Amino acid sequence: MLDFTLEDLSAEDVERLRLVYQPLAESVRALVDATIRTEVDAGTVAAAKAEIDSATARLCHKQTDGSFGVRYLATGERMAWGNAVIGIRNPLAPPMQIHRDESGSSVCDFHLGAAYEGPPDHVHGGVAALVLDHLLGEAASDGINPRLTGTINFRYVRATRLGDLHAEARITRTEGVKTYAVGHLADAKGVTVEAEGVFIQPRWARESSE
Amino acid sequence: MLDFTLEDLSAEDVERLRLVYQPLAESVRALVDATIRTEVDAGTVAAAKAEIDSATARLCHKQTDGSFGVRYLATGERMAWGNAVIGIRNPLAPPMQIHRDESGSSVCDFHLGAAYEGPPDHVHGGVAALVLDHLLGEAASDGINPRLTGTINFRYVRATRLGDLHAEARITRTEGVKTYAVGHLADAKGVTVEAEGVFIQPRWARESSE
Repeated sequence: MLDFTLEDLSAEDVERLRLVYQPLAESVRALVDATIRTEVDAGTVAAAKAEIDSATARLCHKQTDGSFGVRYLATGERMAWGNAVIGIRNPLAPPMQIHRDESGSSVCDFHLGAAYEGPPDHVHGGVAALVLDHLLGEAASDGINPRLTGTINFRYVRATRLGDLHAEARITRTEGVKTYAVGHLADAKGVTVEAEGVFIQPRWARESSE
Repeated sequence: MLDFTLEDLSAEDVERLRLVYQPLAESVRALVDATIRTEVDAGTVAAAKAEIDSATARLCHKQTDGSFGVRYLATGERMAWGNAVIGIRNPLAPPMQIHRDESGSSVCDFHLGAAYEGPPDHVHGGVAALVLDHLLGEAASDGINPRLTGTINFRYVRATRLGDLHAEARITRTEGVKTYAVGHLADAKGVTVEAEGVFIQPRWARESSE
């Protein structure tokens, strides 16, 4: 069974932790971009690397065993801060901030830079799949009980330009433990990738919610 | 049209650049993991952040305009060092090292840690899609002319444990500009995600190879 830890943290505790760790991840995101795009000489790279290794050593002094996981708060809030798409503590995550609009769709405006490249100046097709898989999964979920991807299909209309992007997803129907969702990714010129998927409430989540 | 730059670099030039920039990206990968998993106090985080910001400033002193792109060498080698899956200069990339086996399949053994998490202790479903999209695309390609994803479908057999993973893909048939490929991701207990896709040689690549 997957381990969703219940943490005894107040809203104030969470905000305090956010103020410590979110700016750190933002700094690392800027460093990731700089690492890809830098053209400085070997000596400067060595000096930067020494600082990076020193920072890593400081952070490793005390750390969680294994990955971050998903922590449920007493308030019902879900802390997925290590998540590869929405994790505010995960420098790999853009991170996407997903909202529900009036119609019930899950929508997100976000930016993808050099770190998400596939074809030159364009979003990696697999990154488009990554963000859409997450967004459709969120749309298919009630926000508390997770629904995991059963099957998902992507159709690439054209290449997606790196930059400011928009994505949205919505449920089309639910049958028992299966929820069907559709969505798309768009750049400034319109839709670039379409997705449809079936999301399933895992057995352990059904048991735990009984 | 996408811009695949032809660079006048010798094999020795490439090796020299690799020795400078690859260890930098490796250091940043370790920092990404530490950033997610650290439990040090606010003062220690602030000290680490100051070093990170200093390193970023050094690297930004001279940098390429925009993303890394894909650079073709006079030798025919393709330098996709900024790629989100295989880029040795991209700290977001595991990076996957893909090989062709005797049967013509594209295969890869790689490790995914805390940065690739979705469900607790497990690979994000979208990350599985990301790596498989890339691997099937490589299998469908001849190594020189790119083939981009047209459609791709994923079936999730069960959750993929974070850790050492294996993936493979192969062409099933080719019809004109369309190449059909299948593949899967596996953890220590067997296949976790199956994929099938259609990959298309883009018009500009057809024109440029005429």
